[in-house]
Amino acid sequence: MPPVVKLSVDADEVPVWRAALARAFAEAGLAVELRLAGETVAPETVSYLVYVPSGPVRDFRPYTGLKALLSLWAGVEKALANPTLPADTPLCRMVDPGMTRGMVEYLVAETLRHHLDLDARRCGPDGGWPQTAPPLAGERRVGVLGLGELGAEVARTLAGLGFVVRGWSRTPKRIEGVRCLAGAAGLDETLSQSEILACVLPRTPATENLLDARAFGLTPRGATIINAGRGELIDDAALLAALDDGRIARATLDVFRVEPLPADHPFRRHPRVFATAHVAAFTRPRSAAAVIAAQIARAEVGLELLHVVDRARGY
Amino acid sequence: MPPVVKLSVDADEVPVWRAALARAFAEAGLAVELRLAGETVAPETVSYLVYVPSGPVRDFRPYTGLKALLSLWAGVEKALANPTLPADTPLCRMVDPGMTRGMVEYLVAETLRHHLDLDARRCGPDGGWPQTAPPLAGERRVGVLGLGELGAEVARTLAGLGFVVRGWSRTPKRIEGVRCLAGAAGLDETLSQSEILACVLPRTPATENLLDARAFGLTPRGATIINAGRGELIDDAALLAALDDGRIARATLDVFRVEPLPADHPFRRHPRVFATAHVAAFTRPRSAAAVIAAQIARAEVGLELLHVVDRARGY
Repeated sequence: MPPVVKLSVDADEVPVWRAALARAFAEAGLAVELRLAGETVAPETVSYLVYVPSGPVRDFRPYTGLKALLSLWAGVEKALANPTLPADTPLCRMVDPGMTRGMVEYLVAETLRHHLDLDARRCGPDGGWPQTAPPLAGERRVGVLGLGELGAEVARTLAGLGFVVRGWSRTPKRIEGVRCLAGAAGLDETLSQSEILACVLPRTPATENLLDARAFGLTPRGATIINAGRGELIDDAALLAALDDGRIARATLDVFRVEPLPADHPFRRHPRVFATAHVAAFTRPRSAAAVIAAQIARAEVGLELLHVVDRARGY
Repeated sequence: MPPVVKLSVDADEVPVWRAALARAFAEAGLAVELRLAGETVAPETVSYLVYVPSGPVRDFRPYTGLKALLSLWAGVEKALANPTLPADTPLCRMVDPGMTRGMVEYLVAETLRHHLDLDARRCGPDGGWPQTAPPLAGERRVGVLGLGELGAEVARTLAGLGFVVRGWSRTPKRIEGVRCLAGAAGLDETLSQSEILACVLPRTPATENLLDARAFGLTPRGATIINAGRGELIDDAALLAALDDGRIARATLDVFRVEPLPADHPFRRHPRVFATAHVAAFTRPRSAAAVIAAQIARAEVGLELLHVVDRARGY
């Protein structure tokens, strides 16, 4: 009997995920019974639940035969907050190569935009000709907060473009060309030495409000903040105050405490905030479905699952 | 007797170049007599002229003892157009690592800006939340026209970021990860397969008006043009017509037929043209001065000069 895989995603995303998973299972030569949320299937017969927190399955208790809960999102704080999450079933976060590439592209594009500030060099109808040399990446200190799958690749890419890169993470890491720091002292060095600070940390109790008034007091005057991790990493009021007194010159924000970002939120109107709709780290169905297929194939032959969430640390 | 080096640059640039050259000569352990344009020096005693076409030296005939004419600019079409240029004195174009990095940063920044189009995804005061996945570089075809010192590094860097890169040059080249093309058929493939076309060609009789109505008829509908080579590569009227009928969606232009770009030029007002003041390929005094010192050091010990201009091909 092939294992039963149940897909629980938002209704409008079912067609694209069904197609991507069917293709990935076929390409992996993996025989499974794929069931959608609306299809009749006895919960206790489901071996793998492919899942987003906003989908229809919210109560895991009937799924007594689960071998793994496979998240389609990289961030798992909402899955962990579900009180019905079984204690002994592995929860895997999504590490999607497509998502990693998307995150790298977003952060490199925004880092270069702030670094070169070409918009300020635009030759418009006023007839100006502002011909001054832009800075070079080798003169620009960039910090990356978070050196997991996403942050490590971001730091490596920025270093490859010539930036002077510091990276900070909870546990010590090694990345060629990047000064890797950890712990409280490492955080303070990263904050105080980063003219552009790119943040890709997960949301955990230890990262909430990491970027608060104290942090903005340590960054170089006129620094730029880019947040593509989670909205809760930033103390919104402290960031607005730092923007208004010039300690922080600009911010690019892709994630927010409340999403969609409320229509009346000051981030939408601040002239030096560039806000986007949580687009930096999209799960890409094609590459993510291949990851799901690979995870199930591993589990079915008794190999360890990859990217199993450590519930104590929160990711 | 140390060789006499004469510096001929615009008056306002003399201090920065004098300092950079003095430092570079000292670091290279090179003994030279550095003379500025205003200083008395018998022209026939000058061994090396460090030169920009807009500087005070316009008549090379009195400089009968020149071992080399060392341009501080990468583009040498103006030097070659000077009728007093001695036929048998090597003219060296500037290949400045700082300029190369600057060009790479400018073109990667603009390529990513057009590729991701994050400005169109901005969450502003209208309350919108445009949450759609940006494209990935692996799905984006980019062309680089010109694969010399600058273009090769641009193509290599874009390929490293995951773009599907074609490159075109006069003579065949090999660059890992880049589909290198040459000749007329290669040009047409590059034009027809590039959603974003980055141009870094030099100005020669063969490249003038390369991007004309025929070229814009070959590019994919909605393509983006980025020109950081020379203004003469583009037929301005043809580009404006292609922009207005949508065949070309957008253009980033850093170089123009007349610079500074005239205040009434349509490129300054066109909503889909982003113009900058010839800032992509600035010669950086510190790294360029080191190149000048290295060239003189080579010549003084009898080694061949680097980057000697081939006057028949024009660069």
